[in-house]
Amino acid sequence: MALVVQKYGGSSVADASCIKRVAQRIVATKKAGNDVVVIVSAMGDTTDELLDLAEQVSPLPPGRELDMLLTSGERISMALLAMAIANLGHEARSFTGSQAGVITDSTHGKARIIDVTPGRIQEAIAQGHIAIVAGFQGVSQDTKDITTLGRGGSDTTAVALAAALEADVCEIYTDVDGIFTADPRIVPAARKIPRISYDEMMEMAACGAKILHLRCVEYARRFDLPIHVRSSFSTKEGTWVVSDPYTEGTEMEQPIISGVAHDRSEAKITVVGVPDKVGEAASIFKTLADAEINIDMIVQNVSAAATGRTDISFTLPTADAQTALTALKKIQARIGYESLLFDDQIGKVSLIGAGMRSHPGVTATFFAALADAGVNIEMISTSEIRISVIVEQDGVDAAVAAAHRAFDLDADQVEAVVYGGSGR
Amino acid sequence: MALVVQKYGGSSVADASCIKRVAQRIVATKKAGNDVVVIVSAMGDTTDELLDLAEQVSPLPPGRELDMLLTSGERISMALLAMAIANLGHEARSFTGSQAGVITDSTHGKARIIDVTPGRIQEAIAQGHIAIVAGFQGVSQDTKDITTLGRGGSDTTAVALAAALEADVCEIYTDVDGIFTADPRIVPAARKIPRISYDEMMEMAACGAKILHLRCVEYARRFDLPIHVRSSFSTKEGTWVVSDPYTEGTEMEQPIISGVAHDRSEAKITVVGVPDKVGEAASIFKTLADAEINIDMIVQNVSAAATGRTDISFTLPTADAQTALTALKKIQARIGYESLLFDDQIGKVSLIGAGMRSHPGVTATFFAALADAGVNIEMISTSEIRISVIVEQDGVDAAVAAAHRAFDLDADQVEAVVYGGSGR
Repeated sequence: MALVVQKYGGSSVADASCIKRVAQRIVATKKAGNDVVVIVSAMGDTTDELLDLAEQVSPLPPGRELDMLLTSGERISMALLAMAIANLGHEARSFTGSQAGVITDSTHGKARIIDVTPGRIQEAIAQGHIAIVAGFQGVSQDTKDITTLGRGGSDTTAVALAAALEADVCEIYTDVDGIFTADPRIVPAARKIPRISYDEMMEMAACGAKILHLRCVEYARRFDLPIHVRSSFSTKEGTWVVSDPYTEGTEMEQPIISGVAHDRSEAKITVVGVPDKVGEAASIFKTLADAEINIDMIVQNVSAAATGRTDISFTLPTADAQTALTALKKIQARIGYESLLFDDQIGKVSLIGAGMRSHPGVTATFFAALADAGVNIEMISTSEIRISVIVEQDGVDAAVAAAHRAFDLDADQVEAVVYGGSGR
Repeated sequence: MALVVQKYGGSSVADASCIKRVAQRIVATKKAGNDVVVIVSAMGDTTDELLDLAEQVSPLPPGRELDMLLTSGERISMALLAMAIANLGHEARSFTGSQAGVITDSTHGKARIIDVTPGRIQEAIAQGHIAIVAGFQGVSQDTKDITTLGRGGSDTTAVALAAALEADVCEIYTDVDGIFTADPRIVPAARKIPRISYDEMMEMAACGAKILHLRCVEYARRFDLPIHVRSSFSTKEGTWVVSDPYTEGTEMEQPIISGVAHDRSEAKITVVGVPDKVGEAASIFKTLADAEINIDMIVQNVSAAATGRTDISFTLPTADAQTALTALKKIQARIGYESLLFDDQIGKVSLIGAGMRSHPGVTATFFAALADAGVNIEMISTSEIRISVIVEQDGVDAAVAAAHRAFDLDADQVEAVVYGGSGR
């Protein structure tokens, strides 16, 4: 008998018939002899509808009250799911994040989980019940106020609860068959990855793969908890995210490259003519950090000897660009830089693979493939298991396809289906 | 400075613009120098929509999960109301029933409040905040599960919280101007009652006046808490419900009759030919009590000497009639009664007035008025301050109008507006 934690996103519980189908799947898992804990998101468009209501009432609603409002979404879906399971003759109990012991800090809208005390869930399991838990929400340790976890929150709830319960597996149900070697909308020959390491999955998530959120994979790695990403529309095996996917005994040989990720959501800012003095770059990035802006890649040109000035370029989420530009404008006089350039027509293409550690020719092959495809490289950054390049946005599709082909990732037959974004 | 508890029903917060209007009213009360605690129901049709969703998922949803589902309704309205108040520059904090310390028993769907521990509300008031509390809901003492209070639940929350906070007044906002001497849809000359006693108001509520629920008036009487029933669409004084409305110093003279109530929601069952033996009637009513059916009026005919049998008639809510008939059928053989008669085409008309204690002629005047109006009396019951009669349903309007006129309750001018039902 195993303890299985399952997470169903908003599209899996979009209406009454979806909820009944999910209930059958849960009951089947229970009947197979497992203890089952289910984490559920709000139904379909509920969150957007609630946000729309909030907007009608107030242009800038307080975070505490917005969290109180939004958490009603999971309350509805979890109660309905528990009813649907009861209707199939099994006992189910729904629990809010607070009741499930999801303790967070007080940062409304993007709270971090700081503890999980799942006493009531353990009690429900011990009584043979199926526990249904609201994803995306918790209660703050200090103020006892209701909080939400922000993007990827339901996945994080699932992994955190699975870790606290010492579950055997955390199954993340979504509307695709698993993690693919590339976005099948761009590369029809992309293949489902059967097993991938936490490290690679984190790089994938950080580089634009939308199925799993970075936070949830980080959490799983910390507790060495296996994640199984799979489709709620089929019973096929999906993708296993584990610590070591290529141990002996598995028939798989470790590929050099596990996948090609891409991201169109970043923009590039260039600070032109920065005086080449100690501490100027630090001052610029301190300003951006104070404005709570996450910088991704940074490139500093070699200083031109004649002028004693240099250019600093960096990428950041396009959504934060306006804030960053405003913050930088304020320090122009003090820093003495010449001007700011802004470009949101860029894209990032990343190769991810633990195998590149032992294969030195990866960069050369990647860059040659891009050159053959006529794509120019604007910026480069690397980690031990990743190479990312910034290219012009119109070149992203060609770059992804070329890289996928160059590393022999193309499947013999097309197997992929639609590749969708994740819910919360 | 006073502590004012205000309760707004579902029709007062039906949409974003209603919520903003209520927010302004709350802020005005705060600005006038009062501490304010607000109890709010779910928006307009939310509860019905949630019930509809539940029905799509399960024909007989478990009470625990239905309560979890329905309580999301107030969660939405209270968060939006807090946002609207914040938007007017005042601090508001919303609290669930559980957070507000509304402790109940475990009877899902119609839980009873057994304690109120409003520590967080007192804290919010002390910090100068306006507290917004979800009506209709609480948390069970034993299981810590979310409960709902059933019909009239939000009014009861308001009165219970006002009592626990030792508030100066509990204002119940509704869509009519107060309590009227009769339903203005039947008696256009009905007048608003300025002040009425708890006892009279309880009799009115028990006899079909729908503005305040019996439970909430009972609760207010126990703690001697003044209730002010008024319209959320005007600033006019409404009806005060207090322990002694006719103390010296008020200019009012106590009327003999305070109001005429009517109720079309009851049915009559007659058990025909019951053997006239000790314990047979007890056995019948024990059976009905076991089926959790509330009996209203009972009439037993004098036994016919020739047969040694008697007929027993009683009234009950029409909604319970099928359950009652089924339960009685089961004991027919054991009791040995002959048959059952059922009549749902009845209505109850009640005169309520503390003044009738000292005016012996009330019954005679009432019955004469009914006779003049051509209305036949089927059953009679009385309390110290009430006379109720069962008449055929088609005669209800005429009976109410005749009684209202006979006791000089008709206003010189018509002042009443539409007379609506209460929310939860």
